[in-house]
Amino acid sequence: MVRVLAAVLAAFLAASSAFAQGLIVEKKAFSMPSYTTAGGATIKDVKIGWEAVGTLNADKSNAILITHFFSATSHAFGKYAESDKAAGYWDYLIGPGKVIDTNTYYVISSDTLVNLNVNAPNVVTTGPASINPDTGKPYGMSFPVVSMKDFVNVQKALVDSLGIKKLKAVMGASMGALQAYQWGASYPDSVDRIIAVVGAPRGDAFLIGWLDAWAAPIRLDPKWNGGDYYGKEPPTEGLKAALKLITLQAQQSEWAAKAFGIAPADPAKDPAAAMDNKFKIEAALDTIAAARAATSDANSLLYLVKANQLINVDPASIKAPVLVLYAPTDLVFYAPRVGAEAKEMHAETGELPGPNGHVNGVIGVAQAGDKIKAFLAR
Amino acid sequence: MVRVLAAVLAAFLAASSAFAQGLIVEKKAFSMPSYTTAGGATIKDVKIGWEAVGTLNADKSNAILITHFFSATSHAFGKYAESDKAAGYWDYLIGPGKVIDTNTYYVISSDTLVNLNVNAPNVVTTGPASINPDTGKPYGMSFPVVSMKDFVNVQKALVDSLGIKKLKAVMGASMGALQAYQWGASYPDSVDRIIAVVGAPRGDAFLIGWLDAWAAPIRLDPKWNGGDYYGKEPPTEGLKAALKLITLQAQQSEWAAKAFGIAPADPAKDPAAAMDNKFKIEAALDTIAAARAATSDANSLLYLVKANQLINVDPASIKAPVLVLYAPTDLVFYAPRVGAEAKEMHAETGELPGPNGHVNGVIGVAQAGDKIKAFLAR
Repeated sequence: MVRVLAAVLAAFLAASSAFAQGLIVEKKAFSMPSYTTAGGATIKDVKIGWEAVGTLNADKSNAILITHFFSATSHAFGKYAESDKAAGYWDYLIGPGKVIDTNTYYVISSDTLVNLNVNAPNVVTTGPASINPDTGKPYGMSFPVVSMKDFVNVQKALVDSLGIKKLKAVMGASMGALQAYQWGASYPDSVDRIIAVVGAPRGDAFLIGWLDAWAAPIRLDPKWNGGDYYGKEPPTEGLKAALKLITLQAQQSEWAAKAFGIAPADPAKDPAAAMDNKFKIEAALDTIAAARAATSDANSLLYLVKANQLINVDPASIKAPVLVLYAPTDLVFYAPRVGAEAKEMHAETGELPGPNGHVNGVIGVAQAGDKIKAFLAR
Repeated sequence: MVRVLAAVLAAFLAASSAFAQGLIVEKKAFSMPSYTTAGGATIKDVKIGWEAVGTLNADKSNAILITHFFSATSHAFGKYAESDKAAGYWDYLIGPGKVIDTNTYYVISSDTLVNLNVNAPNVVTTGPASINPDTGKPYGMSFPVVSMKDFVNVQKALVDSLGIKKLKAVMGASMGALQAYQWGASYPDSVDRIIAVVGAPRGDAFLIGWLDAWAAPIRLDPKWNGGDYYGKEPPTEGLKAALKLITLQAQQSEWAAKAFGIAPADPAKDPAAAMDNKFKIEAALDTIAAARAATSDANSLLYLVKANQLINVDPASIKAPVLVLYAPTDLVFYAPRVGAEAKEMHAETGELPGPNGHVNGVIGVAQAGDKIKAFLAR
């Protein structure tokens, strides 16, 4: 009874505090005068954005790093201003009294290198759209290849700069899970626990093929122009087609059936009557892709594709305890493969069922809340 | 014992006959001076190709129609000449003594309207690449929208021309299954049984979205030119990108892992070293797509996409007994949906497991051979 009352009180306090004032976070920039990639290329003036919530304890042992997915940014929790329409993507998980309780943990989240959302406010990244200090012009396709190793090396420098010797956990979804595994492989002494959501450590031929397919429409768009489009008209149509593919593959059949069915986009324009008459889902995917394209950069998408293709962590090399949360109907990370690799790591596992396939790893993680809390507390 | 001996003898005869002389089939053309589509458009001089094996019995009650998948032709069995490298795609199922025994059944297979393989020898089809008799020029995107209803109406005219009142069965994989369902809905008195392999009757939002994604690269290719490219350089790059997507979605993770792994395309060119250095699976998909593109037509792919998007058969409208064979890891027709619709039709079902996902419905049907034989014999 006391436990129930305590839980009710905690929930009330969390809710009322959220009501009174949502979590406000400040975007900061971390910079390195020079960074040498895993492939040996040197990039000058490397910057990534980051944000944090909670209080770092005296021995700096309570920090959790959140690593973001392909099309995301550091904005995993809170709002930048009360007037923001939406909070960060895992705001329902991270905050005072939440699954990842910021009364206990200091939670950091950073932008990756070659972040997709170059044109979004608050995103700080270094990639093909950045100015090359040596030429004064954007890198374009002369930017060096980077991989999860590089994303993680730069994050390590950020974590070092805060005086943190060992992270309590690294947690991320999809490409965020790849970074979490890469942390485990690259810096085994600096990670206490890994929470990998809808992702798997090993390189995978099928995913490499799909990632190539995501990139293809950009290269087909004549405005891409070999990556040289900054200051000109960008390859928006190719970028939209790429983002449409990513949107589809991250979703699943039930989502589409429920949200759109087989209705026409315009009731006056029967899709059977003309080649250009669309179904509702086609028009919706166009709208979603256009909205995503507005803040995205085509070359950065190509670099992210390459970075994801290059993931290749041996599950046996992971020493930290791992919690694997997977979506049974995931079309990006095939559940049987995720399960097999989880077994190799003797990982604890949890299912994230739901109508959204891969996206269940972003919007449906609350259902594994108790598992996450117990895993962090153990 | 007698039955065992008889089976051994039959197998021996089938094998020796195949050894002595493979099944040779002749491609024929069926034509209609005029056909009016389900949407009300009139197409003059409609032609489709077809081929057959076996002997039509006296009361013409032993005919089975094979309807083909998206990227196939009528060539489901036999060879056109002894020197052909490969036989039809279901040659392992159809022939004397085989699962569909041509000593018992007369098996017909026809090209669809708007067949993809316009540039393949032996394909006879009417579609956007055909000459419009009214203008003397290819239709291009002025060809009317057609759907499974039209594919089936033209097949019905072919079947009528042979004096067949009722088909013993219609059987097809993927788009072939859609045609089989459409036969059941459009001509319930003319179909005794339906064998639907890796397909489902209802319209499906997610598949409509994916089909749109398959088409997108063609429209992005500037050489597509609104469909007006006949006699000019065709949009081969867009067509290849579309075919790459189709190849991927028809396959599955195990296939890719086993066939390619994460090896580089060229051992001297590490994919981590440069943006243009590819993985083996990327190069393989390029090669597969280029080979498929050589016989394919971009506009025809767009018309096939539309035809597939328009499928919408109410399972309750199907009166013929149905055998549904589905692939549990199918990425085109999601198994839980296929299963739910099979239940609505009180269909018999069979699984087609294997490493190839959707393609198990083309190459892996032998494992359901006994089920098919019993279903046809009942």
